[in-house]
Amino acid sequence: MMKRKRVHRPIDPNHLAEGILKGDRSILAQSITLVESNAERHFEAAQSLLEKVLSKRTGSIRIGITGVPGAGKSTFIDTFGTYLCKKGHKVAVLAVDPTSHVSKGSILGDKTRMERLSINPDAFIRPSPSSGTLGGVSRKTRETMLLCEAAGFDIILIETMGVGQGEYLVRGMVDFFLLLVLTGAGDELQTMKKGIMELPDLVVVNKADGGNLQLAKKAVQEYSTMLHFLKPYTEGWTTDALPASALKETGIREIWEKIEAFQKATKESGLFANRRRGQQKDWLHESIKDELLHAFYKNPSVMERLSAAEQNIAEEKAAVSSLVKELVDDFLKSRLF
Amino acid sequence: MMKRKRVHRPIDPNHLAEGILKGDRSILAQSITLVESNAERHFEAAQSLLEKVLSKRTGSIRIGITGVPGAGKSTFIDTFGTYLCKKGHKVAVLAVDPTSHVSKGSILGDKTRMERLSINPDAFIRPSPSSGTLGGVSRKTRETMLLCEAAGFDIILIETMGVGQGEYLVRGMVDFFLLLVLTGAGDELQTMKKGIMELPDLVVVNKADGGNLQLAKKAVQEYSTMLHFLKPYTEGWTTDALPASALKETGIREIWEKIEAFQKATKESGLFANRRRGQQKDWLHESIKDELLHAFYKNPSVMERLSAAEQNIAEEKAAVSSLVKELVDDFLKSRLF
Repeated sequence: MMKRKRVHRPIDPNHLAEGILKGDRSILAQSITLVESNAERHFEAAQSLLEKVLSKRTGSIRIGITGVPGAGKSTFIDTFGTYLCKKGHKVAVLAVDPTSHVSKGSILGDKTRMERLSINPDAFIRPSPSSGTLGGVSRKTRETMLLCEAAGFDIILIETMGVGQGEYLVRGMVDFFLLLVLTGAGDELQTMKKGIMELPDLVVVNKADGGNLQLAKKAVQEYSTMLHFLKPYTEGWTTDALPASALKETGIREIWEKIEAFQKATKESGLFANRRRGQQKDWLHESIKDELLHAFYKNPSVMERLSAAEQNIAEEKAAVSSLVKELVDDFLKSRLF
Repeated sequence: MMKRKRVHRPIDPNHLAEGILKGDRSILAQSITLVESNAERHFEAAQSLLEKVLSKRTGSIRIGITGVPGAGKSTFIDTFGTYLCKKGHKVAVLAVDPTSHVSKGSILGDKTRMERLSINPDAFIRPSPSSGTLGGVSRKTRETMLLCEAAGFDIILIETMGVGQGEYLVRGMVDFFLLLVLTGAGDELQTMKKGIMELPDLVVVNKADGGNLQLAKKAVQEYSTMLHFLKPYTEGWTTDALPASALKETGIREIWEKIEAFQKATKESGLFANRRRGQQKDWLHESIKDELLHAFYKNPSVMERLSAAEQNIAEEKAAVSSLVKELVDDFLKSRLF
């Protein structure tokens, strides 16, 4: 195959910023592609664009949505998002999948996943950025969220995909976190990630319809018992379990009312703003850590010495502290990066 | 007050290593003080000592013990440790308290906390190292554990003190983790750290004696129900709840039998050795991270610029990524450390 030489058009952050603030969806999409780019030459333009739109954003609520496999996340988001648009909101749906290495669009791109929402003029759906590192996905999603807010989207739904650390990542960037489950709490929880039950502000038992309705009600009971044992993630807030059917569109209003009550309570108590400030600081320090570690581990001399030492360490035959001190000191003094 | 000029006696790692391998308790205590020292001039001697004794250690089991306040941890360890000594084991008790800034000895030093064990010739009790950082406490405790093993202690009990990240720290350095609780599971768990129920390999309901016996049995039931919902920390192992009374010395044998069964099962499956190897590797990479971050945050130019930027970041008025890239790049190029 012949490789075409790419011509790089100059990127104008001012032009993009204007488009975003006007709510131009095509420019928003282009801008997200820019912040998602791993190319170094895109970094400065993306950051400059962010600086321009950051102060222009208005209020929003960021809602994380996770669920066990088969819980019907896509249908739920389709129904819930459509409901919110009808109520006059502008809804952006982002996905986070730290395990995704496939090309963009293959996961969420087939718009069939969210049939109604994908054609709704008040909704904007964006698939997960594909990236090798957790930190990369985190940065891209956070920055995408900021761009969406600048473009006037006041409800951001962030969906976790796949397994791994996605749930913690998303919990760390949202105001409210919703866990979607099915009937059969005990069995289901056995297959769930450790600690996941500690994260949500609301548990929704989906598919509470037809012949499944009684089982779903029982599951709501089981989850309520379970949640009673656990400390809620948000101080002063009780994490409840509610039944819903995304298919039959029941229980959706109750979910939104719960989220509105949460917003009201946490805004009054100051927790809402405090959590956002805390998340920003955490992001700053997480990014610093990622950047430093990245520089360290990609250093050729570090790589060579580390692999040789790891075996001795694993067998408890070498002292960890002296090895680490030597490696880090040499790295910082090497000036080879 | 006049400051006396300290005369530093030279430290001979060979002498210390010999003493440890002979099981000399006084030299063991001195050596632990050496690895706990924050003085730079002690670092090399401590590491040299560790290198000398590392390969001389024999088999051991490391047991982490945590508990809700008032669960009777000290009495439990006193009884449990005494029981193990009677069975012919040598037991070292270490404590981990990442929040402790007080001088050594004030927590565990008053030997009244563990009356019988503290005078048992087969037991060795050491208070938590006082240190400002989580990484510091972690390193000191791990290295102390290695020294104790070299001195012939085949059972290491590591007690978590205070609140905070102590439980995770200890879980990451032991083979088996025991959670001590009281009656009233629901209320108790509400006050416990998030995620703590995901950590233990065994839950012990203490004070199952006298008028409390029936309540304790009920709590064992409640915890069993609860644990059924959760994924056990150790794959292939079922985390059970057992009643015990450290005061009346009942249920102690059953606990040890459970730990022996755990040892047997995980050694046969290879999980025991794998977990230790994994813990060593985690320690290595944790230490690298700590060392790099420490160098970064103590850099004066970083400190100055960071505090100025943090406010803007918290208000979502500045772009995190560009700031971080600039800070880290400048740090790595500054050659000022």
